[in-house]
Amino acid sequence: MTDTMDISSVMTQIGRKAKAASAQLAFASADVKQAALESAADAVWARRAEIIAANVKDMEYGRAKGLSDAMMDRLMLDASRIQGIVDGLRAVAGQDDPVGKTLSEWDRPSGLHIKRITTPLGVIGVIYESRPNVTADAGALCLKAGNAVILRGGSESFHSSSAIHACLVDGLKAAGLPRDAIQLVPTRDRAAVGEMLTMTDYIDVIVPRGGKGLVGRVQADARVPVFAHLEGICHIYIDTDADMQKTRGVVLNAKTRRTGICGSAECLLIDRAFYDAHGAPFVQDLLDAGVEVRGDETLQSIQGVIPANADDWGHEYLDMIIAAKIVEGVDGAIEHLRRYSSNHTDCIMTQNDATADRFFQRVDSAILMHNASTQFADGGEFGMGAEIGIATGKMHARGPVGAEQLTSFKYIVVGDGTTRP
Amino acid sequence: MTDTMDISSVMTQIGRKAKAASAQLAFASADVKQAALESAADAVWARRAEIIAANVKDMEYGRAKGLSDAMMDRLMLDASRIQGIVDGLRAVAGQDDPVGKTLSEWDRPSGLHIKRITTPLGVIGVIYESRPNVTADAGALCLKAGNAVILRGGSESFHSSSAIHACLVDGLKAAGLPRDAIQLVPTRDRAAVGEMLTMTDYIDVIVPRGGKGLVGRVQADARVPVFAHLEGICHIYIDTDADMQKTRGVVLNAKTRRTGICGSAECLLIDRAFYDAHGAPFVQDLLDAGVEVRGDETLQSIQGVIPANADDWGHEYLDMIIAAKIVEGVDGAIEHLRRYSSNHTDCIMTQNDATADRFFQRVDSAILMHNASTQFADGGEFGMGAEIGIATGKMHARGPVGAEQLTSFKYIVVGDGTTRP
Repeated sequence: MTDTMDISSVMTQIGRKAKAASAQLAFASADVKQAALESAADAVWARRAEIIAANVKDMEYGRAKGLSDAMMDRLMLDASRIQGIVDGLRAVAGQDDPVGKTLSEWDRPSGLHIKRITTPLGVIGVIYESRPNVTADAGALCLKAGNAVILRGGSESFHSSSAIHACLVDGLKAAGLPRDAIQLVPTRDRAAVGEMLTMTDYIDVIVPRGGKGLVGRVQADARVPVFAHLEGICHIYIDTDADMQKTRGVVLNAKTRRTGICGSAECLLIDRAFYDAHGAPFVQDLLDAGVEVRGDETLQSIQGVIPANADDWGHEYLDMIIAAKIVEGVDGAIEHLRRYSSNHTDCIMTQNDATADRFFQRVDSAILMHNASTQFADGGEFGMGAEIGIATGKMHARGPVGAEQLTSFKYIVVGDGTTRP
Repeated sequence: MTDTMDISSVMTQIGRKAKAASAQLAFASADVKQAALESAADAVWARRAEIIAANVKDMEYGRAKGLSDAMMDRLMLDASRIQGIVDGLRAVAGQDDPVGKTLSEWDRPSGLHIKRITTPLGVIGVIYESRPNVTADAGALCLKAGNAVILRGGSESFHSSSAIHACLVDGLKAAGLPRDAIQLVPTRDRAAVGEMLTMTDYIDVIVPRGGKGLVGRVQADARVPVFAHLEGICHIYIDTDADMQKTRGVVLNAKTRRTGICGSAECLLIDRAFYDAHGAPFVQDLLDAGVEVRGDETLQSIQGVIPANADDWGHEYLDMIIAAKIVEGVDGAIEHLRRYSSNHTDCIMTQNDATADRFFQRVDSAILMHNASTQFADGGEFGMGAEIGIATGKMHARGPVGAEQLTSFKYIVVGDGTTRP
């Protein structure tokens, strides 16, 4: 396509086709959807040379554009990563079908029988950055839940995403599903994103996948509902009744296992009584592992801890840095979280279940952990199969967004000529 | 308050107080919320003379403003309507508490135990028109679900709503709950509505209750998520396998029981084969009952049926008028519904379950009826106790919105020092 095409009319066309496809998908059987995803997995493996050749083009483009090493790594595909894509498609294919499930049913004195059953949401728009595998993950999850999807990948991964998308379309065709069920925006023009965010007639929900810049823009500009989180500022509160051994293991894992993911810990809140009695060997563990610890005045007495400033509270580092602070008991931690939590994932370390309950009741994050690493904040680890992202809003989808969260519901009301008095 | 006060700062204050109250309400026990609602019911009955005196002022204002008889009737309160308000409050008080319920729970191979539990949504904004009883219904449902609520009633019911609101606050105080849990916007200034629609920092969801003018404005201007329906254009499809007796009963009830509610039928779709074989005595029933029937060419051969024009398809009359049309089987009905349904409530009359299933799968309305009157589209009839409205969106709340639909959820993840490999 040329740069002079009219983006608005291209996107409207795509939207119309997606809406038409979604009407077909709404009643596609579980078997047919599963077959489409399995055929797509076969196609990705069969066409891997083609995908890698497309990826080489993207890598050249990325190098010319001066992408960082980290971004180049995210972009890169090899046989093992393609195997990962194939495995992901098969995993979603094998999941329970989330559509047509009876959520609840009951009888009424009027003689009516009422059932609440799951339905697809309709059309999902996914806007993502450089990782080309998102094309397969997002396409598969949306299809599994009976939704049509419009994928808008990053410009860097344009050729790789197109090659993977072609395999998904192979799968749709093999299963007899409409090829417009999974569409990829056929242009790098950024105006396409602006169109998607306001296509309320054609798109039911937007899922942005990427950094804070992307998500922030989507949340600010979208007229279509958005499932997303802006930041994952995960806290660990270490209570007076914490077990030191468990705390050391969890803190080190939560910060250092992978620092670049949204579930990595960014701030420690340490109960004053616990600190006075036991010190903070978990802070020493972090220092030993090469983490920069930014502490409040009390914690600065530990050698190697540097002073935190006001900006460090509620800060997402995504790096080998952590903030740390003394608080007055669980209520002090709750107060800090009310102000600084991003409502993604927060953790309490305690052997006292009553204290954990107080924390659970009063902290309103999508995911609350007790004696477990925040790095578990992940749809796969939750047993949801793949996830399309983690949402921190309170509407509809919250926490890891898997196929089940990409459904809505309707009521089926059965009578026998029943009239209302 | 004077007209010169700064509405924006007044609303921000109200928003802040609501948010602070919602943090307290989130962990209010079921007993305390129930006690607050029962005390509020007592207060409404004890202070009924005061409420009626306030209502007299509103009625005078309404008369001076030249309100229609229908609107004056909606505004009017007497002892029996106040008894209705008291009964409504007690009914919500007695419902199961929807907060803290375990929606699902499971174990993971990692050793984690995951629970998904219901939580309040936070702060609800309710914008309504002349019925003063909405003050009590909406306030009670929001409180039951642990939410703070900001009520903005119609200017006509200003004094009545204020008097009822005072009783709700009595209930909160008696139970030791923050009085800011239920606030009423203390001004008739319409600018307050504009503020509410954009207070994304303080309001989690807006529920508009009223006519198309109000709902349309809210849907167009809100930056806060909205639970609502714009129109209830309810259809009844009469299939070739319909039972005539049942059809006659349901059609007459669905149109004429009450014409002004969102669940009243606005259009009949009649299968051609059924019509050719049996005629349309249900159309005659409607004519006999004084309903104006606007039919397509075929149906105009019935004496008394007047011609429908293009505007009659997808039209909400809320009156003794109905549109009627011949279609080609269930697929013809589905095609008409895809174009004209407002996705509120649609009904199929058939003795053929396979045809009903086809209709259920392919029509995506919030409520689908089988052999039952569309007038059952109501939270009370669904057994949800009171409802705050009916939503046709696909996100979060759909169909009747009761206390359960005013909750969100979070995940509680319990480990034992569990770290992620």
